Amino acid sequence: MSALSHLLSLENLTRGQITALLDRAQRLADGHADRTALAGTAVCTLFFEPSTRTRMSFQLAAQRLGADVLSFDASTSSTSKGETERDTMKNLEAMGVRGFVVRHKRDGAVAELAEAANPGTALLNAGDGRSSHPTQGLLDMLTLRQAKGDDFSKLKVVLVGDVRHSRVARSDLQALRTLGCGEIRVCGPAALLPEDGTLDGCIVSHDFDAALEGVDAAMMLRLQRERMEEGLVGSLEDYHRDYGLTATRLSRAAKDAVVLHPGPINRGVEITDEVADGPQSLILRQVSNGVAVRMAALEMLLA
Amino acid sequence: MSALSHLLSLENLTRGQITALLDRAQRLADGHADRTALAGTAVCTLFFEPSTRTRMSFQLAAQRLGADVLSFDASTSSTSKGETERDTMKNLEAMGVRGFVVRHKRDGAVAELAEAANPGTALLNAGDGRSSHPTQGLLDMLTLRQAKGDDFSKLKVVLVGDVRHSRVARSDLQALRTLGCGEIRVCGPAALLPEDGTLDGCIVSHDFDAALEGVDAAMMLRLQRERMEEGLVGSLEDYHRDYGLTATRLSRAAKDAVVLHPGPINRGVEITDEVADGPQSLILRQVSNGVAVRMAALEMLLA
Amino acid sequence: MSALSHLLSLENLTRGQITALLDRAQRLADGHADRTALAGTAVCTLFFEPSTRTRMSFQLAAQRLGADVLSFDASTSSTSKGETERDTMKNLEAMGVRGFVVRHKRDGAVAELAEAANPGTALLNAGDGRSSHPTQGLLDMLTLRQAKGDDFSKLKVVLVGDVRHSRVARSDLQALRTLGCGEIRVCGPAALLPEDGTLDGCIVSHDFDAALEGVDAAMMLRLQRERMEEGLVGSLEDYHRDYGLTATRLSRAAKDAVVLHPGPINRGVEITDEVADGPQSLILRQVSNGVAVRMAALEMLLA
Repeated sequence: MSALSHLLSLENLTRGQITALLDRAQRLADGHADRTALAGTAVCTLFFEPSTRTRMSFQLAAQRLGADVLSFDASTSSTSKGETERDTMKNLEAMGVRGFVVRHKRDGAVAELAEAANPGTALLNAGDGRSSHPTQGLLDMLTLRQAKGDDFSKLKVVLVGDVRHSRVARSDLQALRTLGCGEIRVCGPAALLPEDGTLDGCIVSHDFDAALEGVDAAMMLRLQRERMEEGLVGSLEDYHRDYGLTATRLSRAAKDAVVLHPGPINRGVEITDEVADGPQSLILRQVSNGVAVRMAALEMLLA
Repeated sequence: MSALSHLLSLENLTRGQITALLDRAQRLADGHADRTALAGTAVCTLFFEPSTRTRMSFQLAAQRLGADVLSFDASTSSTSKGETERDTMKNLEAMGVRGFVVRHKRDGAVAELAEAANPGTALLNAGDGRSSHPTQGLLDMLTLRQAKGDDFSKLKVVLVGDVRHSRVARSDLQALRTLGCGEIRVCGPAALLPEDGTLDGCIVSHDFDAALEGVDAAMMLRLQRERMEEGLVGSLEDYHRDYGLTATRLSRAAKDAVVLHPGPINRGVEITDEVADGPQSLILRQVSNGVAVRMAALEMLLA
Repeated sequence: MSALSHLLSLENLTRGQITALLDRAQRLADGHADRTALAGTAVCTLFFEPSTRTRMSFQLAAQRLGADVLSFDASTSSTSKGETERDTMKNLEAMGVRGFVVRHKRDGAVAELAEAANPGTALLNAGDGRSSHPTQGLLDMLTLRQAKGDDFSKLKVVLVGDVRHSRVARSDLQALRTLGCGEIRVCGPAALLPEDGTLDGCIVSHDFDAALEGVDAAMMLRLQRERMEEGLVGSLEDYHRDYGLTATRLSRAAKDAVVLHPGPINRGVEITDEVADGPQSLILRQVSNGVAVRMAALEMLLA
């Protein structure tokens, strides 16, 4: 664990590393935070792609550990003066920022920035391109574990929707595999499923009803409305009919199955109000766990 | 007082509740703030309509009580991704935000959000539509009380200008009535006065000179320039001639009359420089009192 | 030193005052910051012209001294409601802000605002028009002093580029003169050199190779791309050929010469990657020193 200087992806984390992070996050979620853990440490959110929710979740996490928190909206700032992204990061680092929470549109961009960082500086990937969103993967695992216990080998899970464009799905798949999930199903329209090796070992289906049969957890993905414009899906109504999670559909899953969604949800598209706000939904629990997981990650890298 | 879980309006507050808030605000204004009162408590400004001044006043108030302060500009943020306002609030609540300072264009929107909040979460209305701006009403009462003493029954007050569209005016009227103000006059062009029951019990006039006669306080309202485009007022020059407060006009009021304005002021329109910057103006005192009143409200709801 | 209530320019500072600020900044850079120095003191960045880097540097400086930090982006805020800049400042002051970090497009605008401030309120000029950027001047002197020692009379320095439009250059020139710099050279195309008394006592040249001969420090200025549109410079390629600092050119300077640049740098225009990232470059050191110098200035004015 001591070897980790950045959190860029879940791909190369061992089961032991993931479990340690989840254990620590659980302790923090239970209220065992140390307000002085990052006292005097400057943490900067550096978002080259806007995302208010994720930014605020990290911000709250850093504040609760006592860090000095800064926000750099790189989509509007001095990068427009022709400065390279690397120079922006190096400048903030020179000002004394030790932790960077970075979001970027481009696959691999956060890892590239991390290569330019000084020893002692930590980068946390808050989502890059379609590649990775490691803290989302971790919070989803924490949420599953709270509901279903430590033994992932007993679990049947289905990921539903736009897996192709989803960094959330990739991080979830990596974590589920590393934690030894019993059965991973993936379901969505063919145009929204990836054709590379992402789904190796998964049970792939285009029939949502069948894919839900007996699962312990349905992990819904957000439908980007731009996919409609790209012609990858038909109308929102069609999508909802084929891949929207309704109470009727959910009854095919295991009786105590849980529903996750990374948010923000499109009510009535990928999920109905009844399910989103129903007793099996853990959507708001995911949001709460997000802060705990981010605290654990910041603490691990910076404390 | 313990029954209050949100501060949505002054309408249903008792005289005792308002007085207790003002007493506490006065103590805080005198420097008796406790920097640990809200330590570890996350307070988020959630503005669906932009307002830098009010936001900063609340932010300073929360910081002085030791809260973790977040700012969510909902006019630009993830609401654009199709998320409902309620989901935005519920998500921030799930992240651990306990106090929301909410501004909204629509009447009643803050109260609706409050209905969706968990027990233990407090909403403070920072202005909704034309309905209510309770902390502005309170800061105006604190300012009047500092200048004129506790006994509102001795006071003659005139509210001047665009009462029809003003949430400030509605909150002021509610507070003045509850505190038993001796005489409430309202003055403005007919097109800018409300026709519902808002002015019940007030002495209504369109003659500013007459309305100023002998008053202890002139509470000026801001003229929204858009009212001109809507044809509700003539030119700014006409408005100033009829309803602008000049030093000459002010001499009709009681000798020690005071002048209030919620800001930002349109110099030379509803008020002249001479009056705004003169010895009878309490405009900057209002701004100072705003921070104290907001501290008192945050403390009451969250400490 | 006790007489200084604002930091508006380096013009009227004595050598003793500048040296005391640099000494204090050096102590702070060495880690002797007092986290309680500005506890409970509200500091607001009030930028009428956007600048993320300078804002964040001041923000980090204020946080490290324990201040409550606010940010007011006056280019988008309530000034659009017709409020004067002075009223904006007076309102924030009334809310309890004691330190203002002000940037403005117009020469002298910060000094004008300072005249309207109450006793006890301090304004720090974070750059106004072409006039002054005193903390940049100070951080450049601190950087030179760390590299070359206390005795500026031994130093030969060249300022290169758009001196005409540069507040950085003006502050650097003032500081270098006050500290008794041995030789100040200025080099750039005629169209980018000022024709007033700014360069009195400097050795002016349009030949960069000659101007570099034997200098101890090359202080490069940023080329604003808008100067090309204004016809003041030819193409970026031409500018680079004539005034870009390359490794070959730098070899004309003293062997241990250092290179400064206020950033953000235009790589390949006023400076090559090789020089910017090379062993003689102090560009990131300048950025680090910026935080220390701003801490020293905030502390001096507000603690």
